[in-house]
Amino acid sequence: MDGDAAVRMAGLVFAALREASLDPPGVSRASYGPGERAAHAILGAAAEEVGLEVETDPVGTLSMTLPGVDRGASPVVIGSHLDAVPHGGNFDGAAGVVMGLALAARLKAAGQVLRRDLVILGIRAEEMCWFPMLYLGSRAAFGLLAPDAPDTLRRTDSGRTLAEHMAEEGFDADFIRQGRSSLDPAYIHAFIEPHIEQGPVLVEAGLPAAVVTGIRGSIRYRACSATGAWAHAGAVPRQGRRDAVLAVAALAHALEEFWKVAESGGRDLVLTIGEFSTDPAMHGPTKIPGAVGFSLDIRSEDPAVLQAAEALLRDQAARIAAERGVVIDYGTPLPVPPAAMDARLRAALLQGAEAAGVSVLEMASGAGHDALTFAGLGVPTAMLFIRNEHGSHNPEEAMDLADFAAALDVLSAAIGEIAA
Amino acid sequence: MDGDAAVRMAGLVFAALREASLDPPGVSRASYGPGERAAHAILGAAAEEVGLEVETDPVGTLSMTLPGVDRGASPVVIGSHLDAVPHGGNFDGAAGVVMGLALAARLKAAGQVLRRDLVILGIRAEEMCWFPMLYLGSRAAFGLLAPDAPDTLRRTDSGRTLAEHMAEEGFDADFIRQGRSSLDPAYIHAFIEPHIEQGPVLVEAGLPAAVVTGIRGSIRYRACSATGAWAHAGAVPRQGRRDAVLAVAALAHALEEFWKVAESGGRDLVLTIGEFSTDPAMHGPTKIPGAVGFSLDIRSEDPAVLQAAEALLRDQAARIAAERGVVIDYGTPLPVPPAAMDARLRAALLQGAEAAGVSVLEMASGAGHDALTFAGLGVPTAMLFIRNEHGSHNPEEAMDLADFAAALDVLSAAIGEIAA
Repeated sequence: MDGDAAVRMAGLVFAALREASLDPPGVSRASYGPGERAAHAILGAAAEEVGLEVETDPVGTLSMTLPGVDRGASPVVIGSHLDAVPHGGNFDGAAGVVMGLALAARLKAAGQVLRRDLVILGIRAEEMCWFPMLYLGSRAAFGLLAPDAPDTLRRTDSGRTLAEHMAEEGFDADFIRQGRSSLDPAYIHAFIEPHIEQGPVLVEAGLPAAVVTGIRGSIRYRACSATGAWAHAGAVPRQGRRDAVLAVAALAHALEEFWKVAESGGRDLVLTIGEFSTDPAMHGPTKIPGAVGFSLDIRSEDPAVLQAAEALLRDQAARIAAERGVVIDYGTPLPVPPAAMDARLRAALLQGAEAAGVSVLEMASGAGHDALTFAGLGVPTAMLFIRNEHGSHNPEEAMDLADFAAALDVLSAAIGEIAA
Repeated sequence: MDGDAAVRMAGLVFAALREASLDPPGVSRASYGPGERAAHAILGAAAEEVGLEVETDPVGTLSMTLPGVDRGASPVVIGSHLDAVPHGGNFDGAAGVVMGLALAARLKAAGQVLRRDLVILGIRAEEMCWFPMLYLGSRAAFGLLAPDAPDTLRRTDSGRTLAEHMAEEGFDADFIRQGRSSLDPAYIHAFIEPHIEQGPVLVEAGLPAAVVTGIRGSIRYRACSATGAWAHAGAVPRQGRRDAVLAVAALAHALEEFWKVAESGGRDLVLTIGEFSTDPAMHGPTKIPGAVGFSLDIRSEDPAVLQAAEALLRDQAARIAAERGVVIDYGTPLPVPPAAMDARLRAALLQGAEAAGVSVLEMASGAGHDALTFAGLGVPTAMLFIRNEHGSHNPEEAMDLADFAAALDVLSAAIGEIAA
């Protein structure tokens, strides 16, 4: 089997994945739900065909192993997740698992045996839109979830618990309740997560792939509130108003100014107010808005920038309360520290790119990934981005198979060094 | 019957109104719905008891007449509306009708006969939250509605047409379809609308009542949209984003700066973004918001300020499109020109206040009122504000009966001159 054969197999697997989880517009693969189940079945069957050792752990993680020379040595792990947001694209997550499989197929066809086992992982439940927990699937496999997680986490579409959905899929919630794990960070030589780029950077740069320098950390506040006072729109002078919309708009303005300053200083930062809503049961075009609900998502590779953003939020809340009589409550933050990618693995991938004759970019990952779970546990971790048009988490997501092939060439050229 | 008896009657009517339209928290009196129906029945019965001539026109306007010396002369009309926003307060609108009734009761008890008839009006359908039409009830009585209004206007809560709701209440939509009217602006000597103040100005001034100088005009845009592009919150650099929330926040900031400049120049202005919502079906804490719906309400006594605000909106839309790739569509504006109050009536009310020993303020009305319909048709018009805590359109609305009595004293002392 030559390189083209592995890429052709990848194309067939992508087509099968789309077919099995079609939910127009786009695909839907609920965590511990039918679309994800179908994706695991398709990948498992393809791995059997390639001749890999296929297993599923008690929380549903699919592992597909190509044996190495020294079967006792810690393996190289390549993987990503197989769930997808509702009406999302076909490649977010899946591309990484399929690339691992394509690499194994290529190695096997070439008769090349690595020094270590190569384990391809199909991870469960990464998309937080299904269960309100970051990297649920990879954290479950590492035994990092709280014992009560199966019984307290509920899937947002069904309202049913993680335990119920796991049971329905044939998995074992007791594994989580008892704090057990199927992955051991000390026993992973390296973790590589190939993933489509979720922004426009590679499209704009005209390059097929990128080696990731680090993953932005984030501070997310999912349920912020601004509370002022409802009043008649025509009858209250400016100074007497406690206008929650203008208060949050002022906060947005201050955050945007902070962003521009950070940017001009060369500091990494993105921030998003993804949700912003007056209460439809209370608001009206002739009422001063007394309450706003909103969310905040702030990301940077630089922990100092995240700290400065938190300080700004505190200052702005105090200032807005004093000047506008509007109380801002950010709620509980969900902090994720930034993660640097492993220098040796990055160098190996860059060398692989050069050897393969593929021009690649080096860039930060703005989105979090399962790679954060591995890196956070001290596993040497790297990511390889594949060019992708129209962003991710939407049905327009479009990865060209030629770019997938270019990234696979990079990985193929680097894997010997990575497994050394 | 002395003055206190008329005030006691008013107190009983307010209690009956609250009881009949209670909808905790607050009261609800839908235009051409049950709460409004009950309010008309209560006022009509109280007027019968006072001995007034009670009639209802084909669109439901309640008129309660105290005959004057010259029954052929054009009458003095006192009135306001009897509908109320959902879960609103008991006094917005109703206080004006009840004050007219209390004045008639007081005159009748004193055996005082005015030169002209005194007509107390209970107007329908003023609160625009029910039907999307300004001053629907007073405009219906004056024959100002389009012939298709009964069949195109739908009540926001029920989705049913004005014609259906009118029929259900026993009124005649053909009256509107045929362009007929029950009120003739040439045959009204003066219109006085007593109304609770809807802002905090009288509370802060420590005064029970105010004579209104003029009613602010307004430009309202009920259904504005900002359209950018949905994308992943972590992965798109600032320059590549088309963030609809930050775009509308920037617009809000520009409007607030404009407001401060107007204010420091002594120009009258209030503005409100009463509704501001990302789409709950599309938004998420980790998605760059691609669309926002919002409303705008801009008011001033000064037409030049309203024109300047419109120019600012146009400029900002162009600037936001160029700088942020976000298209702002304000939709169709609903312009209402400012209205000055009649100088002779204002003077009569101020003299009445002096004669009654009641200290009053002179101030602009920030809210529109049925008085705008009368003033717009050339009827000499005045308004008398009554102090009210916590604003209006909310269940906390609180008018002290002593303030109502003070305003009634002003009106009682002025009515002879007004009817001259």
